[in-house]
Amino acid sequence: MAKLDEESGEDRLIATYFRPIATHPGAFGLTDDAAAIAPPPGCDLVLKTDGVISGVHFFPDDPADAVARKALRINLSDLAAKGAAPLGFLLSIGLPAGLPPDWLKSFAQGLREDAAHYRCPLLGGDTDRSPGAITVTIAALGTVPHGTMVRRAGAREGDLVMATGTIGDAALGLVLRKDPAAAARWELDDAMRDHLLARYLLPQPRNAIAEALRRHASAALDVSDGLAGDLGKLCRVSGVGAAVAVRRVPLSAAARQVLASDPQAIETILTGGDDFEVVAAVPADHVGELRAEAAEAGVALTEIGVVVAGPREARFMAADGGALAFKRASYSHF
Amino acid sequence: MAKLDEESGEDRLIATYFRPIATHPGAFGLTDDAAAIAPPPGCDLVLKTDGVISGVHFFPDDPADAVARKALRINLSDLAAKGAAPLGFLLSIGLPAGLPPDWLKSFAQGLREDAAHYRCPLLGGDTDRSPGAITVTIAALGTVPHGTMVRRAGAREGDLVMATGTIGDAALGLVLRKDPAAAARWELDDAMRDHLLARYLLPQPRNAIAEALRRHASAALDVSDGLAGDLGKLCRVSGVGAAVAVRRVPLSAAARQVLASDPQAIETILTGGDDFEVVAAVPADHVGELRAEAAEAGVALTEIGVVVAGPREARFMAADGGALAFKRASYSHF
Repeated sequence: MAKLDEESGEDRLIATYFRPIATHPGAFGLTDDAAAIAPPPGCDLVLKTDGVISGVHFFPDDPADAVARKALRINLSDLAAKGAAPLGFLLSIGLPAGLPPDWLKSFAQGLREDAAHYRCPLLGGDTDRSPGAITVTIAALGTVPHGTMVRRAGAREGDLVMATGTIGDAALGLVLRKDPAAAARWELDDAMRDHLLARYLLPQPRNAIAEALRRHASAALDVSDGLAGDLGKLCRVSGVGAAVAVRRVPLSAAARQVLASDPQAIETILTGGDDFEVVAAVPADHVGELRAEAAEAGVALTEIGVVVAGPREARFMAADGGALAFKRASYSHF
Repeated sequence: MAKLDEESGEDRLIATYFRPIATHPGAFGLTDDAAAIAPPPGCDLVLKTDGVISGVHFFPDDPADAVARKALRINLSDLAAKGAAPLGFLLSIGLPAGLPPDWLKSFAQGLREDAAHYRCPLLGGDTDRSPGAITVTIAALGTVPHGTMVRRAGAREGDLVMATGTIGDAALGLVLRKDPAAAARWELDDAMRDHLLARYLLPQPRNAIAEALRRHASAALDVSDGLAGDLGKLCRVSGVGAAVAVRRVPLSAAARQVLASDPQAIETILTGGDDFEVVAAVPADHVGELRAEAAEAGVALTEIGVVVAGPREARFMAADGGALAFKRASYSHF
């Protein structure tokens, strides 16, 4: 017989694993039904939700701490591209029966470290038994001074198109995850293979330059569904076109090696997704400052093209001057 | 070959079904990666996330519009108990392949009607292909004047314990859903059976008295995991006890008929959950005003007990003066 003053298994799970991540005073140590947060005066809230599902966005045998980090980081990446500073997040998880006992401990540990690193505390959550796959849904809150969120709309003719980091690594890493023999076909050394696998497993959101993007970019988004398709979305809502020089798209040494072995892999690189880099349109007179601030923050930033008038689409120009054509511009679940 | 200016299936789905619900200007018609919302000055944000999973929180053959309404309403119910006015919500859905073509249309229709009725617009979302069950996760945002969210903590000795609506209907409805023959055992007429089934299918959140609760309640929560367990949680964090007179717990005619046929059903009624009623501790000198305002809002409100010093637990007193003992005080997923 249960005593009425006894905590349930769910309460204990929350207290053990998630309360230590709920460092914001407005989260009340997860002892209430909701959080109460006083937003900074003069700020807009920037709101984003994104989730990961086992077998769709990650592999069932991925380390639990990496699953937690990925779920949080894909949302942090949106905040970064929008120029927002993290305020906190809500977490909803569905867990199937029979997970290894240490799974949740490792999950919470990864989440705790990332929440601290990115200064994005847990504000509240919901834990459910899932009948099937592990599901992790996060709603992230950020802030910007009123009216200054970096929009998808806003790119203007003559802006330069800039990309952070390197493009295509995660999509190639996913190919390697599904088909380990690709490493030999592509003649990758172990370090190259591990680099690509790591880029798929763990996004590196560019929050370090969020503030710089907010002050210098006219439009931006994070590349989650493939550079080609995502830049196309930015063009459509901005009412402009973009011309990207394929040879300028920043690639890792590993991705360059893949391309040397298989030139067709350019399509995977440009349309595969999971990059979690930022692509931004930047007025020419802001590029110098943005470059300097990105360098100071340790974030690589590369000019890859230019915003043009004309058809509202992103065109990827090969060295011979022709535009690449892709079977599929970006990842779509439907 | 896909043209780069072509919208993906996911984009079309969002534009067709969800854009009409995203009426807040800061949602940008769902054409951006994030929403930007200026919170009302002087307000705290009240934040809650809760989700429903097919086979766990609803039946796979439940009408799609009811699934949408339930997912939103269980979050609205938390905002109500916390005294908060709805600001908007984020939606994350995972949909398996092979859903009937009209499922999403009906889902969006139900969501749209409730979003309008409760003045809680869609601010952003995420749609994924699910490998298994339908999952619907909502993160709801509300507002209260700074520092005034109704907490779980705050109940004081001498406060009265008040409950909205009727208790136990949804739990009995769930029994009927799993075992339709129970209707005959309980000698329910069709109207009684339908009442209980409807109360399980569709919560009726008490947002109409959120403002009154904010001004008059010293502590409150919504009853989602069973009155006994949830009131116990309120007692634990408030550092008080509660004594509830079982005969005063408000029951529908259908629930009274069930009890007449099966006195043991009192345990299901008091611990079964899914009520989505509010239970609140209210100082005696505020009860009159709260009663009047609830009556004006058309929400039934019943005094069921009193907050007492002593063990931090909720005790349910039978007519003979003894305390009921339950096998399990509340629902727990773990």
